[in-house]
Amino acid sequence: MCRACDYTIHGHQHHFGWDNALAPAERVAPGSTILFHCQDSSAGQLGPSSTLADVVALDFSRINPVSGPIWVEGAEPGDALKVTIGDFIPRLQEGTAWGWTANIPGFGLLADQFPDPALIVWTYNAATLAPAMWGREARIPLKPFAGTIGNALAEPGLHSVVPPRRVGGNLDIRDLAAGTTLWLPVEVPGALFSIGDTHAAQGDGEVCGTAIESPMDAVLTLDLVKGANLKTPRFTTSGPVTRHLDARGYEVTTGIGPDLMTAARDAVSGMIDLLCATRGMSATDAYMLCSVCGDLRISEVVDMPNWVVSFYFPRVVFE
Amino acid sequence: MCRACDYTIHGHQHHFGWDNALAPAERVAPGSTILFHCQDSSAGQLGPSSTLADVVALDFSRINPVSGPIWVEGAEPGDALKVTIGDFIPRLQEGTAWGWTANIPGFGLLADQFPDPALIVWTYNAATLAPAMWGREARIPLKPFAGTIGNALAEPGLHSVVPPRRVGGNLDIRDLAAGTTLWLPVEVPGALFSIGDTHAAQGDGEVCGTAIESPMDAVLTLDLVKGANLKTPRFTTSGPVTRHLDARGYEVTTGIGPDLMTAARDAVSGMIDLLCATRGMSATDAYMLCSVCGDLRISEVVDMPNWVVSFYFPRVVFE
Repeated sequence: MCRACDYTIHGHQHHFGWDNALAPAERVAPGSTILFHCQDSSAGQLGPSSTLADVVALDFSRINPVSGPIWVEGAEPGDALKVTIGDFIPRLQEGTAWGWTANIPGFGLLADQFPDPALIVWTYNAATLAPAMWGREARIPLKPFAGTIGNALAEPGLHSVVPPRRVGGNLDIRDLAAGTTLWLPVEVPGALFSIGDTHAAQGDGEVCGTAIESPMDAVLTLDLVKGANLKTPRFTTSGPVTRHLDARGYEVTTGIGPDLMTAARDAVSGMIDLLCATRGMSATDAYMLCSVCGDLRISEVVDMPNWVVSFYFPRVVFE
Repeated sequence: MCRACDYTIHGHQHHFGWDNALAPAERVAPGSTILFHCQDSSAGQLGPSSTLADVVALDFSRINPVSGPIWVEGAEPGDALKVTIGDFIPRLQEGTAWGWTANIPGFGLLADQFPDPALIVWTYNAATLAPAMWGREARIPLKPFAGTIGNALAEPGLHSVVPPRRVGGNLDIRDLAAGTTLWLPVEVPGALFSIGDTHAAQGDGEVCGTAIESPMDAVLTLDLVKGANLKTPRFTTSGPVTRHLDARGYEVTTGIGPDLMTAARDAVSGMIDLLCATRGMSATDAYMLCSVCGDLRISEVVDMPNWVVSFYFPRVVFE
């Protein structure tokens, strides 16, 4: 429940993919605050008791539902939608807050090296958001955010939800969390805003392709900036973004070469090797842990012809 | 002066480029602590009183000197050189600690958009390392580190210092600062380690191609890990890496698309546009400020076919 909300968008008011012909779930005035019930990115196909068989059986036509769309009165192409991100409230299932992380064959930065499906199911405390445990060994700091947040595209027809685009969508930017203000380009009348794919934690890169995928309620305020003519999304964070992760420093591996994608793959591969060697975990487990808490950074992109991409794994996970 | 140092490598004991046939400046036992006098990356061609004309006249055959090389007794191909990074002590010139940032034609992430040379000369307090001022408006938090740090390559001949390689070199990783431990692959007997290109501040990416280029002394301890068979450099930070920057949060712009390099360029261009619009500065000044304090991060690299690169500019610079 949200005492200050003007509207509630329920979980069944969702859609798969972006289509500017969809009927709005609600029409709201600029400045409205809305509570969105967001399903997890499996649309309920996975739950706290799921097993690997459920990952294998996933129906990908039902992946990544987004709640909405919201018609914002007065929004026109060329405006920006200003999204003030309030709280995320994890939704309990089987009596607990929970999330899942999977290696899905064919998906992820190292898909060629990790062809087999894998699953971690996490439970966590929705009230304290204390770190989620991986066995007895690893503690993953949590910071809820929305993986998918965006407006409808100008182009007619149904567009896959998977790729993000200039109007936002599946951005998977882990700092789109409580306290952040986001501006999204508007390309159609009413903006047709939707949100979903809530995550309890994710590193920069989301390297295995999934985060801690977790159903949540999200409280947002939608407003307009007329004639902003924004090219791509931008945002402002209200404070530090990594203090839940950085207290003990980082282990860092590097990839070096003339292609940023290859360098990113090398940096992540190096960290998986390091975690396997120092922690005795399987490569697949290391890959999934990297996805939920490790960060890909471009250290330098100017020293021709070789660039450096670094992968930062927070030491607090093991300390 | 370094009371605990076993050796001092003076500024004249430098070389341009990497060549495993160079005579060692010193031969040291594993575990030795060494004070390196490092020139700035112009090798003294620029100074606190330099003007744009000095940038135009730069002799690029004398760019980026590195102090060394150090022969580490017992080092063999396949070992790792363990570098414990101690202090950086800025070298005074004309009575002050100082540094320079330049846009050098043909160099930098947006070289095509910024064809004209430009220069900022910074002065700062070597004792307090208080933020360096850009006019009255911008305060750049400082965190000294070595831009170039590495071993000689196995391949014979003289190799340009500009690109970093699997043995390190011009890595420009801004967290190779005091307290960090770095491991570098060894490819030749003795390792032949060198260091230079000290920076007072730099953001991830070093987007305009230069940081706050500043002559410094560096104190390092060199040790060996036999048979480490490391593929690329890795490092451990002793604590948080962005707390000098993050207190007020970030302004963030994004680039979205199927090519990481294009996305990185779009994210930085977006920030330059934002700084010009909100701060009234020139695009060239904004580009150089981005280089010394803003960070390129890969937000997601899995949502086919579009990746998201974000550029984080720390708000503390203006607040």
